[in-house]
Amino acid sequence: MPATKSSTKAPCHTTPKNVVQPHKTSLLKRINRIEGQVRGIGKMVEGDRYCMDILTQISAIRSALDATAIQILEDHTRGCVSGAIQSGKGDAAIAELISVVKKFAR
Amino acid sequence: MPATKSSTKAPCHTTPKNVVQPHKTSLLKRINRIEGQVRGIGKMVEGDRYCMDILTQISAIRSALDATAIQILEDHTRGCVSGAIQSGKGDAAIAELISVVKKFAR
Amino acid sequence: MPATKSSTKAPCHTTPKNVVQPHKTSLLKRINRIEGQVRGIGKMVEGDRYCMDILTQISAIRSALDATAIQILEDHTRGCVSGAIQSGKGDAAIAELISVVKKFAR
Amino acid sequence: MPATKSSTKAPCHTTPKNVVQPHKTSLLKRINRIEGQVRGIGKMVEGDRYCMDILTQISAIRSALDATAIQILEDHTRGCVSGAIQSGKGDAAIAELISVVKKFAR
Repeated sequence: MPATKSSTKAPCHTTPKNVVQPHKTSLLKRINRIEGQVRGIGKMVEGDRYCMDILTQISAIRSALDATAIQILEDHTRGCVSGAIQSGKGDAAIAELISVVKKFAR
Repeated sequence: MPATKSSTKAPCHTTPKNVVQPHKTSLLKRINRIEGQVRGIGKMVEGDRYCMDILTQISAIRSALDATAIQILEDHTRGCVSGAIQSGKGDAAIAELISVVKKFAR
Repeated sequence: MPATKSSTKAPCHTTPKNVVQPHKTSLLKRINRIEGQVRGIGKMVEGDRYCMDILTQISAIRSALDATAIQILEDHTRGCVSGAIQSGKGDAAIAELISVVKKFAR
Repeated sequence: MPATKSSTKAPCHTTPKNVVQPHKTSLLKRINRIEGQVRGIGKMVEGDRYCMDILTQISAIRSALDATAIQILEDHTRGCVSGAIQSGKGDAAIAELISVVKKFAR
């Protein structure tokens, strides 16, 4: 499947089911690093490390996950949501956006 | 008092640097599952999956991480903190506990 | 284009410094109720009420505040941000939106 | 009802239903300030102030509320929970503590 014309503004190049993330490479790097961090806390538990150190590390993973989510959310807003608004389909896109923000704001 | 490995109340059986988690097996299972979920979002980004679906999945990982942290926090309070309070060293243990709660409550 | 006060879509009817909230009446009612809840925890502390009951009430206030923020955020996205995107000034509006989402997602 | 001997360690001086907060005066000041902040956002909405400014202010209130909750939580842990642990009734007190932490950590 051909990647988009490298626009950093429009992840939603075809349909909502096929979205090339504009920061795909750096996102994958981040996610890979988070996966390593999660594996790291497994090793900490395995190695009987001090509870507080494990919790501090879990808190760091949470921050990294949040930052990743914010990146995707921003790209989604600049791409999919902006596109929807410009083509008169903003209502549904914004409702969907807010429903996701709710999950993270809680 | 000789704490044993099987006590569900006392993870701090020797020193703070060597803490056998009372729910070690289930914790490792949980962490392993979270690692798989993180790898899963990597595959979603790789496969150009829809942003909203990725964000929903990240939100689920966050909940799983939080639940894991709460489990460790509870065991830590029942074990290390309780032990410290009973032996008159509660002040430092509680200060440390609260500093970690702050990170999660934000 | 002269937006009107009755539009539920466009809070940004004149300038960013003068925004009539589309749900102004219900927002004021919510905020008034939250103010009463905060006064209520003051009375709880004053009356030496049990800590856990006070904390449960603070947690309820936090939820009410978050719900209010989400309402304003949604209206802002439907109004100011949509308008900015349609008039080609979406970039700054989206950057600002995301900076606020970050504060709530943390 | 006679206030306790000003111990900063033991809010739970009689029963869980009658707890003099060790930082009662400063707590009441904080809560009073938060009440003023909430009234302030009411005035901002009333005065058609910019959405983003209102949201920034709501986020500040949330931080102030969280800091207040953490203070109460810390005093509760040093007082009620420590006391319960020392008198062999730690289990229920810790379960209750964790249930409240869950609400704030989410």
